Amino acid sequence: MENDLPGNTVVRLSQYRRLLEKYKYLDEPYIFSHDLARMLDVKAVQVRHDLMLLGISGDRRKGYSVTALIDKISEKIDRPEQNIILVGLGRLGMSLVKYLKDSNARLDVAAAFDIDPAKINHSCEGISCSSITNLPDYVRQHDTTIAILAIPPEDVNDILPILLDAGIKGILNYTSEHLAVPDNVFVRNVDMLTFLEEIAYFTNS
Amino acid sequence: MENDLPGNTVVRLSQYRRLLEKYKYLDEPYIFSHDLARMLDVKAVQVRHDLMLLGISGDRRKGYSVTALIDKISEKIDRPEQNIILVGLGRLGMSLVKYLKDSNARLDVAAAFDIDPAKINHSCEGISCSSITNLPDYVRQHDTTIAILAIPPEDVNDILPILLDAGIKGILNYTSEHLAVPDNVFVRNVDMLTFLEEIAYFTNS
Repeated sequence: MENDLPGNTVVRLSQYRRLLEKYKYLDEPYIFSHDLARMLDVKAVQVRHDLMLLGISGDRRKGYSVTALIDKISEKIDRPEQNIILVGLGRLGMSLVKYLKDSNARLDVAAAFDIDPAKINHSCEGISCSSITNLPDYVRQHDTTIAILAIPPEDVNDILPILLDAGIKGILNYTSEHLAVPDNVFVRNVDMLTFLEEIAYFTNS
Repeated sequence: MENDLPGNTVVRLSQYRRLLEKYKYLDEPYIFSHDLARMLDVKAVQVRHDLMLLGISGDRRKGYSVTALIDKISEKIDRPEQNIILVGLGRLGMSLVKYLKDSNARLDVAAAFDIDPAKINHSCEGISCSSITNLPDYVRQHDTTIAILAIPPEDVNDILPILLDAGIKGILNYTSEHLAVPDNVFVRNVDMLTFLEEIAYFTNS
């Protein structure tokens, strides 16, 4: 499948869809691009440009059909079902599993792995936790491509090569460590320290 | 103080500094811009442009002084010490507090607030948790401007007005909800679902 959209566009389309799903739930059949823009703090011209990419146009008086927008966004950004694993079932990992379960997301964690014997063979929100030594077999058997990394930073050097060797191609990185990965592996870093420094910069002027 | 840098630039400068602090720790006195670029998956021209903003130039043979870069970045992006509060001391909230403590960050959580009586008056990593009803007084007394929001999405409508009325100006939002805030409040959303959808898009092509 084509993946020719820039990352930021995919992120915005995903955010539009989340908001549109609330509209759908409230039985609102139409929405204006400027309402989407206002609610997501995006410029209206940016929203219209993004929606144009979907090949969909709004009615001048009523706006865009909510269900049509959701369908078009899904067609554009969704990929065949992917198996996601969680690596590191500490407090953060457990809260992430619970969050995904609660949000009824299309994407879901299928299995968890840890190095801590106290966690192995336990389960969290219906997800069982196995030893990291079982990860390569699991990934091969289930054709898994995505891992959420929620391990302590000092374990990254030991764990990352296991993920890469097993064939993981996308990592959501909750450690504050930089991950050195080949070009064909996509990493999204979620680094609280950087976010807090950015917020501090913009709130104390 | 001036806060005339775009958000993405602040984020990159923060990331450079984190990496530079590791170099400093390893007693590496110099670094080349292309090494910074490579390690952070940023284009080298972007790094050089960012470093030019700092008014610092590298030595052609040795590169940039690591300590000088750290000092210049700190001068540019750091703000006087800010008091950060955590709202919501569930699993996620607790893992965030622990993460900040472990990372010896300059920014730290000073107090936590929750609505759950089971959590109030307990403490986590040395941070005591008070009732949300005490938040406005605390914020005024400690001149707090930044809050980390780690509450269940269904509580956002009740809790957000309390933060805004109390005078919070920056929010790190771990709920998946869109926060409607006035223009003078800065919000950074950390939305796992959006990140996972982006990763899925780029790893299954």
